[in-house]
Amino acid sequence: MSETAAQLLLDRCDELAAISSNPEFLERVHLSPEHRAANDLVAGWMREAGLSTWQDAAGNQCGRLEGREPGLPALLLGSHIDTVPDAGRYDGMLGVLLAIAVVGRIRDSRLDLPFAIEVVAFSDEEGTRFGTALLGSRALAGTWDDEWWNLTDTDGITLFEAFQDFGLDPARLPSAFRRPENLVGYLEAHIEQGPFLEDADRRLAVVTSIAGARRFALSMVGKAGHAGGTPFDRRRDALVAASELVIEVERISKERGVIGTVGRLQAFPGGVNVIPGRVEFSLDLRAEFDDDRDDCLRLLFEAAHEIAERRGLAFHSTEIYRADAVRCDLGLRDAVTAGIRATGDENPMAFWSRAGHDGVAVVAVTPIAMLFLRCRGGVSHHPDEAVKKADVAAALDAYEATVRDLVASRSLSLST
Amino acid sequence: MSETAAQLLLDRCDELAAISSNPEFLERVHLSPEHRAANDLVAGWMREAGLSTWQDAAGNQCGRLEGREPGLPALLLGSHIDTVPDAGRYDGMLGVLLAIAVVGRIRDSRLDLPFAIEVVAFSDEEGTRFGTALLGSRALAGTWDDEWWNLTDTDGITLFEAFQDFGLDPARLPSAFRRPENLVGYLEAHIEQGPFLEDADRRLAVVTSIAGARRFALSMVGKAGHAGGTPFDRRRDALVAASELVIEVERISKERGVIGTVGRLQAFPGGVNVIPGRVEFSLDLRAEFDDDRDDCLRLLFEAAHEIAERRGLAFHSTEIYRADAVRCDLGLRDAVTAGIRATGDENPMAFWSRAGHDGVAVVAVTPIAMLFLRCRGGVSHHPDEAVKKADVAAALDAYEATVRDLVASRSLSLST
Repeated sequence: MSETAAQLLLDRCDELAAISSNPEFLERVHLSPEHRAANDLVAGWMREAGLSTWQDAAGNQCGRLEGREPGLPALLLGSHIDTVPDAGRYDGMLGVLLAIAVVGRIRDSRLDLPFAIEVVAFSDEEGTRFGTALLGSRALAGTWDDEWWNLTDTDGITLFEAFQDFGLDPARLPSAFRRPENLVGYLEAHIEQGPFLEDADRRLAVVTSIAGARRFALSMVGKAGHAGGTPFDRRRDALVAASELVIEVERISKERGVIGTVGRLQAFPGGVNVIPGRVEFSLDLRAEFDDDRDDCLRLLFEAAHEIAERRGLAFHSTEIYRADAVRCDLGLRDAVTAGIRATGDENPMAFWSRAGHDGVAVVAVTPIAMLFLRCRGGVSHHPDEAVKKADVAAALDAYEATVRDLVASRSLSLST
Repeated sequence: MSETAAQLLLDRCDELAAISSNPEFLERVHLSPEHRAANDLVAGWMREAGLSTWQDAAGNQCGRLEGREPGLPALLLGSHIDTVPDAGRYDGMLGVLLAIAVVGRIRDSRLDLPFAIEVVAFSDEEGTRFGTALLGSRALAGTWDDEWWNLTDTDGITLFEAFQDFGLDPARLPSAFRRPENLVGYLEAHIEQGPFLEDADRRLAVVTSIAGARRFALSMVGKAGHAGGTPFDRRRDALVAASELVIEVERISKERGVIGTVGRLQAFPGGVNVIPGRVEFSLDLRAEFDDDRDDCLRLLFEAAHEIAERRGLAFHSTEIYRADAVRCDLGLRDAVTAGIRATGDENPMAFWSRAGHDGVAVVAVTPIAMLFLRCRGGVSHHPDEAVKKADVAAALDAYEATVRDLVASRSLSLST
């Protein structure tokens, strides 16, 4: 039965993946027409599962199943439905669909619920469009920064304008904020986006913590010049300098046990016969512990300034994202562990998430926990992202068992 | 008097620089509306100087002063009026304006001419729009390759379509070809685009040869992946690999006395939190002698393949431009040397051009020579490009004297 349900979820992932701004690959960004279409599709599935639905003031698609009486605090289940460019079809989306399926099962079983259950399909986790990630979950958590209204996308459209274009009123944003007293906790199922489950030949894992990440917009500024006419000793080539730093990011991060990535890099002005005068690039640093990450950052910036000075360039950096490491709640982790055990895995794997997730923001208002499921080759942020139907079925069973475990323990605590 | 004339030329450079597709900086590419406007402006100045004008079938703006009888072979004077992105205002343009001014002076002096004189403002030397350079001068020289019709710009417009959009008939292109028997030679004045004249405190130089250059479109192809979830030992990061090669280009080129530049580089898909799966970049290699250049290329490609293999990537290269080194004609060089001497410099500097020029193409149909004038700091392909008025005046005098020297020697050879 779970295999059939799993196939339905995979089919729905395909259906969502067809909603893309690009005919060649999957890209669906915050507040785009595709975001609208995805919200509508997901809302329909929520209603099918018996949830009442609404889109909140931040563009998050929400659905709610009331508990034994209306208005009880809610257990949130969720993930995101935005994507990176040239994305896979399971990152985020599968977590939303699993959550809807779990709530559908709970409703069908007419379980007596000591809390409400809500599903949230977050509008922006990746940060593809405006550079700053978690805009959907930060709105929900009430940790919104009004400076973000001035963020611009590559077309120069501000976040403020994008809200309006999408039909949202920026002034109403605070209505999306949730209060801790109205929440029970937050659970998220997600593909691992790493190879540890596959390497261990296991299906599911409980997440112990989510890595702290910091992201920077970097630039090296030298001087453009004619590729032929400018001898090497007079060059202030921004690309050679940036390239040295890219290699240092790999070397120093490896050495310090930190994960460092330069994902964006472009040289300007970009003529074949022109020495690059400026390079714009990015840095993403993450680690299990924030002090390891920050120490690595210090070493990298020292290297950057040394390179810039030696080559007569200027190095600039702007922090565009910061999320400190987040511990998953012990009580919720126990429930996830119990949920996995219910699928026959007596000793579930437990490890920290190298990837960031919406829980990093949601933890500001309620405890969080996560369930990981295996993905092929650990591949994510790539069209080759893949999951096994049997793993999705196991995740669905474990997720449902997790919620049932919480219902049981909460009912117990309420009755004592 | 030459100072006043020089000021006029500088003012005209400013006037041309105002014709730009970008309000922030100077960019004027092949077959653009700005190309049209620049051709029209230059044609007006040609007519003022007494030349009859036409635009040839390749979009080159031409002007002609007949010799002592109509239809004589022509001495060509010229340079180009297209630019790189964020360009200076003298590269190319000043050479066109000097040529027009020289012909104006010759006409005013009613000199008896044993040949016609033509000025050509080449439509494309830089290759900014279609990647392949010298499209204007190669058309004139009849060394056109019909495969170029399929070259595309960044908007996907083919060269064929761009010709039509500009109002040119691709089928008529051969009418732009010139025959050797109708030509006397080609002279070009150009800013040095290098620091040698300034370092020696000299104004003008005669060019001995023009560097041979080869240009390649390169790509490193690895695999995109989630920046958090993919451990270093599983990454196939195309940007770290490309960065290693950028550093090798600098190191190996320096070591071999070759000039190597990576001017373009961009990482894809370009997400802050995505490992780059592909990098597209360029390579420009030039040297006084072709075998030095080609030997350096061999070493660089060996390095590229070693890097790609070590990191599990694929390295691809496509040659997009090739011009072998060209020797300037001894007879024409003597005339340029005589021209510079006429300005009071008894022992003119002579060196090879690190930059490519239209002469590299024109030499296929007629002998070539070049006159260099000092530019500030050797800076070119940058808005800081600058020349001194007194140097422009000296260049104008030397250029005129060069043409007069050729008139005298040709008259002599005709009368003996």
